[in-house]
Amino acid sequence: MKGRPSAPDVVRSSYAELIVTDLAKSRWFWVDVLGLHVQAETSDVLCLRGTDELTHHNLVLRRGPVAALDHIAYRVRGAADVDRAEEYFAALGRPVRRVAKGDGTPGVGDALHTVDPLGFPVEFYYDIEQAERLIQRYDLHRGAAIARLDHFNIVVPDIPAAYSHYTALGFGCSETIEDEHEMYAAWMYRKQTVHDVAFTGGAGPRLHHLGMATHESHQVLHIADILGALHAESHIERGPGRHGVSNAFYVYLRDPDGHRVEIYTSDYYTGDPDHETYRWSVHDDRRRDYWGNAVIESWYKEATPVLDLDGNVVPVSESAIDESAVRVGADGLGG
Amino acid sequence: MKGRPSAPDVVRSSYAELIVTDLAKSRWFWVDVLGLHVQAETSDVLCLRGTDELTHHNLVLRRGPVAALDHIAYRVRGAADVDRAEEYFAALGRPVRRVAKGDGTPGVGDALHTVDPLGFPVEFYYDIEQAERLIQRYDLHRGAAIARLDHFNIVVPDIPAAYSHYTALGFGCSETIEDEHEMYAAWMYRKQTVHDVAFTGGAGPRLHHLGMATHESHQVLHIADILGALHAESHIERGPGRHGVSNAFYVYLRDPDGHRVEIYTSDYYTGDPDHETYRWSVHDDRRRDYWGNAVIESWYKEATPVLDLDGNVVPVSESAIDESAVRVGADGLGG
Amino acid sequence: MKGRPSAPDVVRSSYAELIVTDLAKSRWFWVDVLGLHVQAETSDVLCLRGTDELTHHNLVLRRGPVAALDHIAYRVRGAADVDRAEEYFAALGRPVRRVAKGDGTPGVGDALHTVDPLGFPVEFYYDIEQAERLIQRYDLHRGAAIARLDHFNIVVPDIPAAYSHYTALGFGCSETIEDEHEMYAAWMYRKQTVHDVAFTGGAGPRLHHLGMATHESHQVLHIADILGALHAESHIERGPGRHGVSNAFYVYLRDPDGHRVEIYTSDYYTGDPDHETYRWSVHDDRRRDYWGNAVIESWYKEATPVLDLDGNVVPVSESAIDESAVRVGADGLGG
Amino acid sequence: MKGRPSAPDVVRSSYAELIVTDLAKSRWFWVDVLGLHVQAETSDVLCLRGTDELTHHNLVLRRGPVAALDHIAYRVRGAADVDRAEEYFAALGRPVRRVAKGDGTPGVGDALHTVDPLGFPVEFYYDIEQAERLIQRYDLHRGAAIARLDHFNIVVPDIPAAYSHYTALGFGCSETIEDEHEMYAAWMYRKQTVHDVAFTGGAGPRLHHLGMATHESHQVLHIADILGALHAESHIERGPGRHGVSNAFYVYLRDPDGHRVEIYTSDYYTGDPDHETYRWSVHDDRRRDYWGNAVIESWYKEATPVLDLDGNVVPVSESAIDESAVRVGADGLGG
Repeated sequence: MKGRPSAPDVVRSSYAELIVTDLAKSRWFWVDVLGLHVQAETSDVLCLRGTDELTHHNLVLRRGPVAALDHIAYRVRGAADVDRAEEYFAALGRPVRRVAKGDGTPGVGDALHTVDPLGFPVEFYYDIEQAERLIQRYDLHRGAAIARLDHFNIVVPDIPAAYSHYTALGFGCSETIEDEHEMYAAWMYRKQTVHDVAFTGGAGPRLHHLGMATHESHQVLHIADILGALHAESHIERGPGRHGVSNAFYVYLRDPDGHRVEIYTSDYYTGDPDHETYRWSVHDDRRRDYWGNAVIESWYKEATPVLDLDGNVVPVSESAIDESAVRVGADGLGG
Repeated sequence: MKGRPSAPDVVRSSYAELIVTDLAKSRWFWVDVLGLHVQAETSDVLCLRGTDELTHHNLVLRRGPVAALDHIAYRVRGAADVDRAEEYFAALGRPVRRVAKGDGTPGVGDALHTVDPLGFPVEFYYDIEQAERLIQRYDLHRGAAIARLDHFNIVVPDIPAAYSHYTALGFGCSETIEDEHEMYAAWMYRKQTVHDVAFTGGAGPRLHHLGMATHESHQVLHIADILGALHAESHIERGPGRHGVSNAFYVYLRDPDGHRVEIYTSDYYTGDPDHETYRWSVHDDRRRDYWGNAVIESWYKEATPVLDLDGNVVPVSESAIDESAVRVGADGLGG
Repeated sequence: MKGRPSAPDVVRSSYAELIVTDLAKSRWFWVDVLGLHVQAETSDVLCLRGTDELTHHNLVLRRGPVAALDHIAYRVRGAADVDRAEEYFAALGRPVRRVAKGDGTPGVGDALHTVDPLGFPVEFYYDIEQAERLIQRYDLHRGAAIARLDHFNIVVPDIPAAYSHYTALGFGCSETIEDEHEMYAAWMYRKQTVHDVAFTGGAGPRLHHLGMATHESHQVLHIADILGALHAESHIERGPGRHGVSNAFYVYLRDPDGHRVEIYTSDYYTGDPDHETYRWSVHDDRRRDYWGNAVIESWYKEATPVLDLDGNVVPVSESAIDESAVRVGADGLGG
Repeated sequence: MKGRPSAPDVVRSSYAELIVTDLAKSRWFWVDVLGLHVQAETSDVLCLRGTDELTHHNLVLRRGPVAALDHIAYRVRGAADVDRAEEYFAALGRPVRRVAKGDGTPGVGDALHTVDPLGFPVEFYYDIEQAERLIQRYDLHRGAAIARLDHFNIVVPDIPAAYSHYTALGFGCSETIEDEHEMYAAWMYRKQTVHDVAFTGGAGPRLHHLGMATHESHQVLHIADILGALHAESHIERGPGRHGVSNAFYVYLRDPDGHRVEIYTSDYYTGDPDHETYRWSVHDDRRRDYWGNAVIESWYKEATPVLDLDGNVVPVSESAIDESAVRVGADGLGG
């Protein structure tokens, strides 16, 4: 687009920073149960990562008064892409704030913070501390044996607007849920998997969930079994099951603040230059669960509020479309 | 009990004979999709078995006008136990019919047929044709890779009566679902697994499901994936999931006539002489699914009618208790 | 046999007591790495069990000067069977010693110790402390997720003699390795699995290995991965692999004293009264590894010495047959 | 390098074309046993792909007089990259041949064939027919459930030369095997996995193996079980096992002509811009098998000859280094 600054070269979704209200309870859930590796810890902040992650963290938990998303973060290809991010979002009329190493999230160097056109707090950075290689430290694998962060799923009232924004940022689209009139959801990627970010239609901006990758489906079953054993099965919200979209095997959990995490495994390669978007009909009951199991209502309705650059909760806009209403319509024809 | 004939020495639940209304559709489901091995086949009858079964069949499908259970069958320790079965059920005042080799189910020798005190058609036999060993024929394993029949689950209005009858037959009890007033379900065994037969409370006599054993949980996931791929996901009724009771990993499927089959794996050894019954509270949400996932209503309500010795459908009696009503009560306290 | 006392009714192989030279190192291996549950512990003795075991232990490790087998133990059906064991082995001219509760292995009640005709120290007992049910304590499953002891494998110079002794004790035979002249190995059972005891031909009496059952093959892979991660891969002697005999998936490990343990999963049901012995040709390269992988020489040659009732090492007799020599013969025709 | 044409932008390793001497036997192995999907077939050629591959093929088998590699093929980012490939290899003084759509391999459009500086026949193409999406066709998954081609492994006498050539082509290096004097092997990638191509030291140019990706480790075990069941276990050369390098779970098979294929699963993401090379010591016994299992001699010594552009076998040069000799050195210190 003539005159518009070029977009930063995003490599991948890399971490999220969540506000939690009771750090001890959160530590129980994310470390003791799920088994994430503690890379850094203070009385206010926990930096966690999966065993395949080679940088400082995939998840930052920060103590705060209200459970919320502080920001999602994308790693970019080089230091110059942080500058590009600043110019790009400034040109879009969005607030931008440069955060120097040491002033922001532990381990992260020079970063650009913005609230994107969809209302989400987003960080772009290149510089980050490297971390010890744990890929083969099977002696440390516990819980869900999480390898790395795989994706963000965000709730937005206007799916086409989200699609356009991320397309402009250079993301490809692997899959959608559609009918002849509407796009209900979309999955978009930079790294060569099904997605780095996906959009769920609903009142937004809100964070729907973080997707954490594990290597094999038995590890997804194992974390559900552990939660049953601890009589903490109420933390299991949906699944385990097979997604239609992405083909991944999954379970959705809720942390002590209600933040949702998906344990996710076995999607597919999307790196070819002409990779085509696969379009699901909203009337195909297999799109959300390939086995046709119904989606839990809370999964469609509940999500995490997001903060602006000053730490205030961003108000949400309602959505005109409702995929869950389509699902329950008579004869699969929707409402 | 003084004067009462001794019970036959039951070895295990070994096969069921189902009436199906369209044998071609049934063949598609049980052979093409689930992958059971065809041991014998005529235009009216299919004899099927799992790969670890060393006798003629685990399942007989017989063409008929009404989908129903023709009979369940227990293998006994020796030929004399067939006589004992005849005397035992005759002494109970139940109808008995001796079926000679060649007159009954293909492959089965001398057998005793009865309608037991619970109203179910049951066969006891020792003599049966041996079959080729397929345990290591991995080249033939398909679908759910079913190894053998594991158990019958029957719907009865009076759980204590079923418990008493099978206790008298020499079965042990591995697990129950109870509260301070009622027994809602029980799992009883002769072979050294959690069960050969289990009782679900409801209008009966009806057959709730056949349990078919497979070796590993990924095989349970695979059959669900296959059904999704065939757009036959409506055959998946409940699961996959982990049972609280039995600890097995499971999925429940419905065949083209609505007969229910459970693909079941990984329960535990019960062979010690003092093996204790494990008692679940009906208020523990993990009893039916260890992950707390809700049980589908149809799973509690729908079941297969059973036939008497003359092939007529046995009328059902309603049950005074309803576990599913307990489940949905406020605060888990039931209704 | 006229005049001979009847054999005790053996339920299953239930535990082994090993002498270890460094209890701390043994604890590292069996508890920290393999993940067995510590049921009781003193400065001299560790009592360990798998998660599915409902009695006091599957393995007792006792500090001593020489790494050896103190005894293998079989649980019998009732208290009277301990008396029967005493009479039975006394009638065979074998040394017998009655050990009262509190005088022997922790948790075990009245027991009979003998050195059997094959030269092995064997205990028979009925009374044993029950233990907390851990079957569903997935939060405690670690390492190889061992469920229970599955079997003993013993080295004997005379396989037919071992076969006869255990046949007389009421064991069935599930599989053998043979040629037209010799029986090279046999697998024998009381519980409804492939075996409670197996015989490997060689200088004996020695203990070849303890078989510990886990539920799924990925758990076998996981313990090998853990040992690699700890740079303790020298504890992996053979496998993982698929057995021809038994069809189980396995890995053989050596503990710090060289005691061998097999992590073993997925054999098959043998409970039918007419279960037939499956006979492997010693010339079938799949018998020991179904994938045709060569057996490590140490696996055939090394084993644990056994103690007599006074704690002295029993001298071994050489074997006239050598299955490993057959294996390496030209064209699979043996020597 | 000043004046040198820029390298083509390689997307990934995408297919190999092998000459086979008996197409029916090859079809048995690759289609009936391994389960690859037949995309196109004539009396002389078979085009096969995995279920996740969305282009025409991952493997082409062509009938010919001598078992050999016809060429390996890389997909490039756009049509212009085929021109770049032509200029690039011509500038290196290598033979180049432009092959028009319809004149070369079925399904492939405009392509550049060369013999690279390492002596290997290599094709670069962008245009290829798309194929039906089979990712979720679980009903068609058979054998090893191969998803896609993952990598080529080539035997070269001069590892640093191979490393330099592929570095110049824009490949990153994920792992190596080294000592203070030599590089014994290297793994290099364009797509975001551990490799698209790896180098094994030895007499070359020869093809060591094709790596085919599957999703989970149980699928690797399953193909070994199938080969055992078919008494075709001689096609299993090495493994199953866990690699130190790449961390993948693997098995190596040999097809009827001796061409080697690796079934490979679960490596890791390498897409970050500063992804560091992980360097294994040649003295670490876990580098080739993380469990310390010895590598079969044939795996180091045997490989597939390669053809030049006229279909003649390229003569091999001996290698000055021999990793297998290091492995068997006393005290792991090599020779």
